[in-house]
Amino acid sequence: MGKEERLQQQFAFCREIDKEKRIKRQTYQSDAKTRENDAEHAWHMAVMAILLEEYSEEKIDLLKTVTMLLIHDLVEIDAGDTYAYDPEAKKTQKEREKKAADRIFSLLPPDQGERFRAIWEEFEAWESPEACFAHTLDNVQPAMLNDTTKGISWKEHGVRLEQILERNRRTGEGSEILWKYAREHFIEPHVGKAIIPENCAKVSFGESDKHSKES
Amino acid sequence: MGKEERLQQQFAFCREIDKEKRIKRQTYQSDAKTRENDAEHAWHMAVMAILLEEYSEEKIDLLKTVTMLLIHDLVEIDAGDTYAYDPEAKKTQKEREKKAADRIFSLLPPDQGERFRAIWEEFEAWESPEACFAHTLDNVQPAMLNDTTKGISWKEHGVRLEQILERNRRTGEGSEILWKYAREHFIEPHVGKAIIPENCAKVSFGESDKHSKES
Repeated sequence: MGKEERLQQQFAFCREIDKEKRIKRQTYQSDAKTRENDAEHAWHMAVMAILLEEYSEEKIDLLKTVTMLLIHDLVEIDAGDTYAYDPEAKKTQKEREKKAADRIFSLLPPDQGERFRAIWEEFEAWESPEACFAHTLDNVQPAMLNDTTKGISWKEHGVRLEQILERNRRTGEGSEILWKYAREHFIEPHVGKAIIPENCAKVSFGESDKHSKES
Repeated sequence: MGKEERLQQQFAFCREIDKEKRIKRQTYQSDAKTRENDAEHAWHMAVMAILLEEYSEEKIDLLKTVTMLLIHDLVEIDAGDTYAYDPEAKKTQKEREKKAADRIFSLLPPDQGERFRAIWEEFEAWESPEACFAHTLDNVQPAMLNDTTKGISWKEHGVRLEQILERNRRTGEGSEILWKYAREHFIEPHVGKAIIPENCAKVSFGESDKHSKES
């Protein structure tokens, strides 16, 4: 491949991913008015990864983690955002996103397309320390914004505590400290207000303890 | 500083920077309708840095470069976006941004605030290989979007070729290849259309050569 062709493929990809700025999420920005989009979400988490790396359960390759966070939602350019609490959309999510990855990553020169694809698949597989920490942030960042906006997104969707805990059942794998902080500061204060505490007797906040020394 | 206090400072900063998503730039997204914001711009350039690192004039620390790009516009939360072709706003830019940096980076725990501040100052100083490459992308990315949108932002502001070349007089320092590509593919095709070619006899595209072997 010539140098010019390589540059053209790289810029074709750079132009294409601009569309991520128009993929809206359900989460509101801190103004409680503007819906966050995927590019903003990725940017926010990338900065957070750099600042919060010290809380990762395992040592991580920070550059790989940041890259993962920056590109993990690119598939939504074709597949759209799948709301975490939409069971119907969840059913077809994997298939839609795989097809999107086939198209989008193949815009790049093969070496870079394969690398990005592998990093995206690593995120999806949720096994490596980097993927675990990236998933922690992918759940903690919207919880932080939901807290900042008094939980309007939870309220709009009538989200139940059980659903939140089910969604977050693996959040602590990347960082127990961040998940504990998010539970105590971003989720618990909204139970019975923005969050429906239905069946809450059946669920537990795990080892969370509001009166522990750490908090 | 206790662990809880450190976490609180880190999350206070993470919440504060959400405001960057509402700092609008003059550049349009590729849909030619939506103005890009600073968070989207930073995200876009961070991905581009990862993909285009190979064209940097000097070897760079990629993680530092990505961090620099992710945070370089945070000062605009207080100082606002200063349009590249607004000479009046440019006069007070440095002072406004320094004051903003004092406030915003001091939200973080001191070690992290000092680190981010130093990286921001390194970007501003435009001397290190990382800063030079970051500045190249800071100019090439909007040029790419201006090209994609048929130069509507240039047209809206009646931008002259001279102004573009003046703004980009140091763009090649970070990557001559990327600046050459941007000139030939993103700027030159719009001269006489979206870009006013006023006094263009006096200016030169430098070593750009449309008929060179490389292109």
